[in-house]
Amino acid sequence: MRIAVLGGDGFCGWPCALNLSAAGHEIVIVDNLSRRRIDAELGAGSLTPIAAPEERLAAWRELSGREIALERIDVAREYERLAALLREWSPAAIVHYAEQRAAPYSMKSASHKRYTVDNNVGATHNVLAAMVESGVDAHLVHLGTMGVYGYGAHRGATVPEGYLEIEVPLPDGTRFAERILHPSDPGSVYHMTKVLDQHLFYFYCKNDGLRVTDLHQGVVWGTHTEHTARDERLVNRFDYDGDYGTVLNRFLVEAAVGYPITVHGSGGQTRAFIHLRDSVRCVQLALENPPPADGKARIFNQMTEAHRVRELAAKVARLTGAPIEHVVNPRKEAPENELRADHRCLVDLGLKATTLDDGLMEEVVAVARRYAHRCDKSKIPSVSAWTRERARALAWRRE
Amino acid sequence: MRIAVLGGDGFCGWPCALNLSAAGHEIVIVDNLSRRRIDAELGAGSLTPIAAPEERLAAWRELSGREIALERIDVAREYERLAALLREWSPAAIVHYAEQRAAPYSMKSASHKRYTVDNNVGATHNVLAAMVESGVDAHLVHLGTMGVYGYGAHRGATVPEGYLEIEVPLPDGTRFAERILHPSDPGSVYHMTKVLDQHLFYFYCKNDGLRVTDLHQGVVWGTHTEHTARDERLVNRFDYDGDYGTVLNRFLVEAAVGYPITVHGSGGQTRAFIHLRDSVRCVQLALENPPPADGKARIFNQMTEAHRVRELAAKVARLTGAPIEHVVNPRKEAPENELRADHRCLVDLGLKATTLDDGLMEEVVAVARRYAHRCDKSKIPSVSAWTRERARALAWRRE
Repeated sequence: MRIAVLGGDGFCGWPCALNLSAAGHEIVIVDNLSRRRIDAELGAGSLTPIAAPEERLAAWRELSGREIALERIDVAREYERLAALLREWSPAAIVHYAEQRAAPYSMKSASHKRYTVDNNVGATHNVLAAMVESGVDAHLVHLGTMGVYGYGAHRGATVPEGYLEIEVPLPDGTRFAERILHPSDPGSVYHMTKVLDQHLFYFYCKNDGLRVTDLHQGVVWGTHTEHTARDERLVNRFDYDGDYGTVLNRFLVEAAVGYPITVHGSGGQTRAFIHLRDSVRCVQLALENPPPADGKARIFNQMTEAHRVRELAAKVARLTGAPIEHVVNPRKEAPENELRADHRCLVDLGLKATTLDDGLMEEVVAVARRYAHRCDKSKIPSVSAWTRERARALAWRRE
Repeated sequence: MRIAVLGGDGFCGWPCALNLSAAGHEIVIVDNLSRRRIDAELGAGSLTPIAAPEERLAAWRELSGREIALERIDVAREYERLAALLREWSPAAIVHYAEQRAAPYSMKSASHKRYTVDNNVGATHNVLAAMVESGVDAHLVHLGTMGVYGYGAHRGATVPEGYLEIEVPLPDGTRFAERILHPSDPGSVYHMTKVLDQHLFYFYCKNDGLRVTDLHQGVVWGTHTEHTARDERLVNRFDYDGDYGTVLNRFLVEAAVGYPITVHGSGGQTRAFIHLRDSVRCVQLALENPPPADGKARIFNQMTEAHRVRELAAKVARLTGAPIEHVVNPRKEAPENELRADHRCLVDLGLKATTLDDGLMEEVVAVARRYAHRCDKSKIPSVSAWTRERARALAWRRE
């Protein structure tokens, strides 16, 4: 089918585009290359040397015989070009990765908060408005985050996939049952934008009958998929810096380059994880099994396992021999939390989970060692503080 | 106290600014005059001839001896100027009316949907980001809408003020109780932006300890307050057109100018109402009784009574002798709904409700008759359709 991959130049978007192209779908990547611009802003590029977009696509054509088109459109700011693309190309599906995806980057300053809200809400709303205006009958698959549920207040309950069955007590002592969008409790401006996205989907599904799948993804780890590993020119980006590096990948690169494994606070935070290979496979499963237009967004939890951060650190230390260092947590978050979440829907559609024990942590360490000479260790610490109080704590520790 | 009134040139903002000034507070109005620009766009101005902003303020100075400052800042687009104002002027409170407030306008086209989202989310988020960045310890009072709760799914329950006590059934047969932000079910892009606002407040109260009061307001009726009635140059705007005219005021003006009272569909929709005098009084009560910084937004339902639309039409018909006409509903909404809502918080703070039976409907009719010669009857019909299907129904009826 014809699929537009918005944000198809990024860490998840690029391997997703290759996977869908390999599966025989006709792909156009829509991207403003903002992630490459942010590399320049932060002075912290991908550990792996990623090729220019045109070079990547030429290599893919050469190796696979398949064409992927590229449209340099800013989804949040160039509505007319986006709407024209939908009208003229009439995709059967749209995958939406066109959002600023790092929580620490979203908390760096007022300007970064505003960029994240304007870009993410603007992009999502432009896609929805353009779908309605163009009348294109496309299935929208959006990448959300497990972080919309929050990591604190569930009291041992299992987090369901998007919707919660509740009972509302009435004054006469009876109750009525209702199925509601799960209450949200975002931990950063970035996570908050994914909450806002949910409410945009809610309205447009109800009012316009759009078909939307919102994938609440865990922390993605790994760097290769079978397609990005085929050629140096197809290599995927690999972020290790304090803003864009995510927890498990960061630990693996720290160990590989001779830096201590930096655990924020006690490391009692429990997070959901998914390997990059599974992430792109989940998107394919969602696309190939579209939901009905029943007035509600379909929500899946896109994760395969949950771990405590200090357990991950211990695992990486055992694998590599690297030491663990507990550092001041720049985030405002619960020091310890449990996380149990349902994630049966994608398994029922055919997902076979790749877990941390499948030997792929070694692959990440090998990639990190191979490109260790490109690592700027000064970019490793997380310095984006969630609040003034956290900034003071970080500054005090640095003195 | 020092109070910045964002959107202080509009229908509710202007009488609110006068009321707070009369109560002895030091006021700066921050407005980009967008509502006057939209008058020009729609070719449908206020029924009352509103004076230029500077003329209004000069008249107020002359009559009251009080100064109100005016800063022409676009809150959604001129972040730096907004942040500088907060830093330099250090208000104790901010009242936030700087949002596009008409549901039909928000549904006119993709461009109007996008303007409403960009403006409303941008304005609210800029205010929050500027409060955090400037470190100003201000209480933010925001005008929300009763429409965030939705008008369909409550099954006879009373809508509480912002938060809902729920019970979550666990697999072992037990339940746990939780207090959550009330589930939302917005009926238009405009209402959706007020849902998004709630989630912005949620995060910034939790992360940064901001103090926020969100006033979920019913439909405002009436046009004068004691202050706007003091001089022709202080007159408040009075919207009767299909986009900005709200239900009761529209019925009263229709009756006054010799147009049938236009009921959308069966008129079985129940809505919450509040007189403009009470609306500005509620904002004052919220300001003079600020909430603690307890990590949660305080939410009040700002309404005094609820009525079915067809009952309002019958009331206006009895008062004026005008005929009632049922027209195609351009909105996608339930044809009939109940609405019972708690609104004790503002009463407990001292609000004395002005009801429809207090004789003020006659005042509105008198104002409308006085300016009837300014009415362009062609602007009365509501033609902004919620969906393609609704647009077809409207077009068919016009043929």
